[in-house]
Amino acid sequence: MMSVPYKKTLGMLAALAALPLTIASAYGESALSAEEVAKAKKLYFDRCAGCHGTLRKGATGPNITDENMKKKNYTADVASAFITNGTPGGMPAFGGGELSEADIKLVANFLMEPPPAPPEMGLAEIKESWKLIVPEAQRPKKPEHNRNWKNYFGVVLRDAGKVAILDGDTKEVVNIVNTGFAIHILRSSASGRYFYSIGRDGKASMIDLWMDKPGVVAEVKTCHDARSIDSSKYNGPKGNFEDKLAIVGCYWPPHIAIMDGQTLEPKKLISTRSYTYDTNEFVNEARVAAIIAGHKDPVWIANIKEAGYIWTIDYSDLKNMKITMAETERFLHDGGWDATKRYVQMAANMRNKMVVVDSETGKQIAQIETGQKPHPGRGANWVDPKYGPVTATPHLGEGKVAAWGSDPKGHKENAWKVVRNVETLGGGGLFVKTHPKAKHVWVDHTLNPDDKIKRSVCAFEKADPAKKNCWQVADHGRVTHFEYNQAGTEIWVAVWDQVGELVVYDDKTLKEIKRIKGDWLRTPTGHFNVYNGMTDTY
Amino acid sequence: MMSVPYKKTLGMLAALAALPLTIASAYGESALSAEEVAKAKKLYFDRCAGCHGTLRKGATGPNITDENMKKKNYTADVASAFITNGTPGGMPAFGGGELSEADIKLVANFLMEPPPAPPEMGLAEIKESWKLIVPEAQRPKKPEHNRNWKNYFGVVLRDAGKVAILDGDTKEVVNIVNTGFAIHILRSSASGRYFYSIGRDGKASMIDLWMDKPGVVAEVKTCHDARSIDSSKYNGPKGNFEDKLAIVGCYWPPHIAIMDGQTLEPKKLISTRSYTYDTNEFVNEARVAAIIAGHKDPVWIANIKEAGYIWTIDYSDLKNMKITMAETERFLHDGGWDATKRYVQMAANMRNKMVVVDSETGKQIAQIETGQKPHPGRGANWVDPKYGPVTATPHLGEGKVAAWGSDPKGHKENAWKVVRNVETLGGGGLFVKTHPKAKHVWVDHTLNPDDKIKRSVCAFEKADPAKKNCWQVADHGRVTHFEYNQAGTEIWVAVWDQVGELVVYDDKTLKEIKRIKGDWLRTPTGHFNVYNGMTDTY
Repeated sequence: MMSVPYKKTLGMLAALAALPLTIASAYGESALSAEEVAKAKKLYFDRCAGCHGTLRKGATGPNITDENMKKKNYTADVASAFITNGTPGGMPAFGGGELSEADIKLVANFLMEPPPAPPEMGLAEIKESWKLIVPEAQRPKKPEHNRNWKNYFGVVLRDAGKVAILDGDTKEVVNIVNTGFAIHILRSSASGRYFYSIGRDGKASMIDLWMDKPGVVAEVKTCHDARSIDSSKYNGPKGNFEDKLAIVGCYWPPHIAIMDGQTLEPKKLISTRSYTYDTNEFVNEARVAAIIAGHKDPVWIANIKEAGYIWTIDYSDLKNMKITMAETERFLHDGGWDATKRYVQMAANMRNKMVVVDSETGKQIAQIETGQKPHPGRGANWVDPKYGPVTATPHLGEGKVAAWGSDPKGHKENAWKVVRNVETLGGGGLFVKTHPKAKHVWVDHTLNPDDKIKRSVCAFEKADPAKKNCWQVADHGRVTHFEYNQAGTEIWVAVWDQVGELVVYDDKTLKEIKRIKGDWLRTPTGHFNVYNGMTDTY
Repeated sequence: MMSVPYKKTLGMLAALAALPLTIASAYGESALSAEEVAKAKKLYFDRCAGCHGTLRKGATGPNITDENMKKKNYTADVASAFITNGTPGGMPAFGGGELSEADIKLVANFLMEPPPAPPEMGLAEIKESWKLIVPEAQRPKKPEHNRNWKNYFGVVLRDAGKVAILDGDTKEVVNIVNTGFAIHILRSSASGRYFYSIGRDGKASMIDLWMDKPGVVAEVKTCHDARSIDSSKYNGPKGNFEDKLAIVGCYWPPHIAIMDGQTLEPKKLISTRSYTYDTNEFVNEARVAAIIAGHKDPVWIANIKEAGYIWTIDYSDLKNMKITMAETERFLHDGGWDATKRYVQMAANMRNKMVVVDSETGKQIAQIETGQKPHPGRGANWVDPKYGPVTATPHLGEGKVAAWGSDPKGHKENAWKVVRNVETLGGGGLFVKTHPKAKHVWVDHTLNPDDKIKRSVCAFEKADPAKKNCWQVADHGRVTHFEYNQAGTEIWVAVWDQVGELVVYDDKTLKEIKRIKGDWLRTPTGHFNVYNGMTDTY
């Protein structure tokens, strides 16, 4: 998944073990009033559930169920201390103004009680939320403008609840579109005409780029909590599915929602509640962490995070869906294609592994130990001068990019083995990026605790990874996420701040071309090029 | 599913609507003690859950959740009246000695409160229950006897918790094996050597027929509530899976359990919790009602009852299982193969339909409206003189056998259309049976309310269905279930009573050959021939 904010990404893991327990005291009050529970539920959902799960069983963050807290003798006061001060392991500090003391105490007490059952959501309720704002017949038959829309960038303005559409040729703002709460990512439809967005509240929206002023043409709330969206991209002997379907992967309820790709009309739900692949314990909260669309087959690949399964979902017949359920590794997060778009490479980040599924068969074919908490985004593919085609990931837990052979046909000896480690400035790396026509591979350090490092990027040459440059991009915020223009000559990186920036570099010379600024540029957490998105070029 | 007892098979459906509500009074007491809840839970589970579901949401019986009861103004007194007196729609009377007045009142009050959450069951707990009584190395290398074991019959002695093994040639009892609580069905392994049994309490057992005195060689409790079991039967280019795996379909927790076919060592669980195929509402209790094993492909076909899906489960690679989920119809119950073992035909009995899935693709290809509540058991296949190959089902709700064309290649014009209706003596039919070498097709009336009819069978000629004979088999109990001997010349039918009988007829002459009796023959509810079971000949 892209653009995961700092507050939600790292857990209390190391710290929970390390912090001295001198602050422990008797259990805090329990028996909250209905109003207090309602408020605590909302605070928890907005601030904590991303890492710890709606049912608190943990994922990126540790298990903080009431049973587990009590087992460790963590009282409400201990919980308050963690929430207020954060932990060196990555849990952010919510004290000092982020949350009031009263709210922190409320959440801490809420954690001492069993989690309330989160509501289900069926198709009828989802359909009620569906809004077809501009029906297909009323949309343009051809682009209403002469811009090169395949080089548009969609920029997530996270805290503003908006998406900015920028012209990648001119760097002008084409429009700023209201999409709603906490947009997580954008994905391009197969034709590139539509951007699909997904909010952390489960709301999916689609933006038509053929409109003179691109706007939302349809929206639907697919669940209460979601992170991933994609569209159907296959066009071949089994049918032309380009722009025909959209899919959302939900955190709660744990399901997959399939919509019409032209209207977002909801069509079908598939439950992802599962037994874990290894111990076969039932996981009610088996969340869908990432989805990518096949180009060679009519399939979506979806991570069932807590269960450790990767599902290859054949969408060619919705009434008779075929799912291959590959046992891989637990706590699946993000990932992407190899250069041929046959092999899916996903991070089981809490297991320090990338796992590889062959999308032709839906079977796991390899696991690769890469380093501390790999977080590839969608990863980066290039041809290494010595090892042939490779794919790479940065790491949350250490300062390196690991690249492994991803060409089992041409370079069998290197396949699914780490062949290169390129040192970066430190841990906290979220994204690595390159382009088939680019000279460099780029990497960020977004979640590094050091102010200088978190604002710095490194770029190294594909032809000689030892040729590496690192520099500070900005003196504020955090620097995160890369996207190339369509031609692969320019790369955009975001300064994620309340008033952020987009900095455009020449990939060949590493020179700054343009610094896009403005009050409208609030909390840019991800930017997506149409052409590279529709073709999965990365 | 075979051998469903009267008490669990029919619901309160018609009656709940029809009964005058003069008996209604104020809501009964609530707030049962923990002890009372424990007792009520057990009573409900043993007597009610089969039809109404552990979570009370209904299936064969109606929805009797506390919300639904309150919506209909059904008080504890109304519920007591139903439980005591039964209903003409098929709900049995539990008054008059079956349950005490106090117990009836307890269950009625229990139904006024929300159902307690039933316990989960993961692989660790299942493994703890696993007993390998005779390891493979200690089992005979060849049959220890000279009997024709492929003509053995396994007879379920339901209330005794035993399985009798009879020699189909001599009709002698070979052994009586203790298997435990309420055995529901037996299935033969591909080689025929093993009988697998499943109890309503989820306990699976396997009996080795090569032993001089066949006995249980392994057992495992796969869940809290189950109805179906089968083994892996495929042997072909994709591997030899004969006797390699066993599968149990559970009611609660709603899952599929896969075991080693030689030892019953539990290997894997798959959750079946699903959204309904039509309205896409989440069903926590999406129960597995029937499973049949493929011969032409390494697949099991499983009914996800409440959700209305038929899953075709490819077991050739347990680490990368492939499931095709066909949308069919709700309340799937029982069914079986066509004569070629390519098409699976399952009853959606509360929808008066048979649904057909092509096991080669896993897709639904037809639905057939056959009559009021079809209940085929596994159905009967024969070649009709006019319409070619047909498959047939009796009905719970009306007195007829409906036969439809099941040869889409050779007789496309008749495929999946009812081509014949053969009248029987009345409703309550559970099973129809024939054999490729038999002259007749046989049908029972097990659940008919009339004493004479429920003890009668009909047999009609394949070559001329108008040539039909019906007669009373016994003057006690209920007559149910058929099975041929290996040669297809003799047919066995059970008199289901506290001390029951097995009556053997000559299929050609319809003459009684033998009446097997004995105190040991307690509540025979199903009898299974090894050869016909291993080859799915019916």
